[in-house]
Amino acid sequence: MKSEEQFLELIDTYFPRDHEFLKLGRGDDCAILAANEYCVSSDLFIEDVHFRRDYFSAADIGYKALAVNISDIAAMGAKPVAFSLDLMAPADLDNGFWDEFFKSMSMLARQSGLALAGGDLSRADKLGVSITIFGVAGGSGTFISRGNASPDDLLFIVGDIGLARSGLMALEATGVAAREVLPAAVMAHLRPKPKVMIGTLLNAAGVTSLMDLSDGLARDLPRLLGPERGADLTIEETTLHGNVLSFAQTIGTAPLEVAMLGGEDYALLGAVSPDALDKVGSVPGLKIIGTVTESAGITLNGAPFTATGFDHFGK
Amino acid sequence: MKSEEQFLELIDTYFPRDHEFLKLGRGDDCAILAANEYCVSSDLFIEDVHFRRDYFSAADIGYKALAVNISDIAAMGAKPVAFSLDLMAPADLDNGFWDEFFKSMSMLARQSGLALAGGDLSRADKLGVSITIFGVAGGSGTFISRGNASPDDLLFIVGDIGLARSGLMALEATGVAAREVLPAAVMAHLRPKPKVMIGTLLNAAGVTSLMDLSDGLARDLPRLLGPERGADLTIEETTLHGNVLSFAQTIGTAPLEVAMLGGEDYALLGAVSPDALDKVGSVPGLKIIGTVTESAGITLNGAPFTATGFDHFGK
Repeated sequence: MKSEEQFLELIDTYFPRDHEFLKLGRGDDCAILAANEYCVSSDLFIEDVHFRRDYFSAADIGYKALAVNISDIAAMGAKPVAFSLDLMAPADLDNGFWDEFFKSMSMLARQSGLALAGGDLSRADKLGVSITIFGVAGGSGTFISRGNASPDDLLFIVGDIGLARSGLMALEATGVAAREVLPAAVMAHLRPKPKVMIGTLLNAAGVTSLMDLSDGLARDLPRLLGPERGADLTIEETTLHGNVLSFAQTIGTAPLEVAMLGGEDYALLGAVSPDALDKVGSVPGLKIIGTVTESAGITLNGAPFTATGFDHFGK
Repeated sequence: MKSEEQFLELIDTYFPRDHEFLKLGRGDDCAILAANEYCVSSDLFIEDVHFRRDYFSAADIGYKALAVNISDIAAMGAKPVAFSLDLMAPADLDNGFWDEFFKSMSMLARQSGLALAGGDLSRADKLGVSITIFGVAGGSGTFISRGNASPDDLLFIVGDIGLARSGLMALEATGVAAREVLPAAVMAHLRPKPKVMIGTLLNAAGVTSLMDLSDGLARDLPRLLGPERGADLTIEETTLHGNVLSFAQTIGTAPLEVAMLGGEDYALLGAVSPDALDKVGSVPGLKIIGTVTESAGITLNGAPFTATGFDHFGK
């Protein structure tokens, strides 16, 4: 792609400028958003840190950069409405690449009801995307934050744990050939599905805490609970995805360890009062994985569990 | 800096979590902003594209990454309230660097009334900052966009043009030694002052269009005017900063060419009806530079002017 104008034309081809919550769209110093309350989140998606061009297509990159942001809106039980796109573009990527990238990103945006509100473009050595996303409260009028879980609340997840990590590790080990061997795991890594509808249902059902799993259950669960609470988890191997079991066998690790370390699952993790259990019971795919305890510390199937998920800065 | 936790602790040291417009601050999946309307803008600030570590100190980088974003809020005649920070951090920068970086950014944030609402951190080969900033309308209750200028409206600038470009070119040619020779120009490049107060005054005075000059007057003026309008400019060399005159002489270029090409001036450019001239007349530093014409095309001191400012993707 040769000029900024070419980028802007391509963006205009794929992303409409109008949205009910956008009072002023792209092309000015700022966009203007009009609603009473917004929830806002930002995520980076950087080449050779969050993805590799070896096995991510242009369409995969455009999709996932936005999907991981939408997942944060889902984790508030909210409705995504607009996003801002800061794009770092290496000089070697051709028009065909960008066409696929924006087409894929815009399809996900349209499905999710998202307008592109603005952003910035820059040359860079490596491809990188920084997205800031905006959501509004759904029918309940509320957002669900973390840290409100009470002792004896039930903990639940919606979505697979350890599946995306299995896909990542298989892709790193064997490249695109992993698509044949562990198709669901690879797709979970390349094309995670943000659970907006599920988040809305959980919100309506009155769950007390909710978050999305980006760094693995082992690291993220303490973030949901806060420093004062712990959890007793009961997770049967049989509830894990078949691709997680296969992958764990291949590398000679316990499947539950793969599941707990997780990383980029974008499953939803939450807590709900036992009284509200019948209300969340109808949410598709919801699995109860344990209970909140009075004091800190986590047990898994009766044994103390200590492990760490993924730290971008560690090691 | 070794771990994500160290970064987050440092950020907590410098940036308070609370702000009147932040219903929920950092640390959850999203922050929650509560106001009726927000103006929103994003800007990238990337090593070796927007700045060089040779002559930008850690404090300069932390300052300017935020300042260029605040300038977009100023250009709407609005009041900055919160920002989100996506930080790409190379492994070789030590704790001292980050302390200076955050201290400097937080000083500007505090002066400008800005809370840090959230963000993301990632390793990267080069240092990069992506900021999304939020502003609210001031006393007038309105935002000033571009493209509303009518024929015979007066065009004005507040701030120096060509000064930051002179500083950049001198720094590129001679490194930090340029600080001695062209101190004002170098400071204009390293530490541009966002004109929030001026923007608010211009808004109250009823200007019709406003923007900030980031790519030079030659490129930015057509963006203010829109495709249908043109301008007759009258700019005397004597109104340019002495450092621009010196620099132009050194490189053997006409000072007005340096001024028109500009780039990263972060001066404000706007249009005002002649009827409202007395109202804007009291705004400090405001200079009338011409009038809006019925049809497209720009003249400078009576001669047709065609030139281009800076395109990040050009050449």
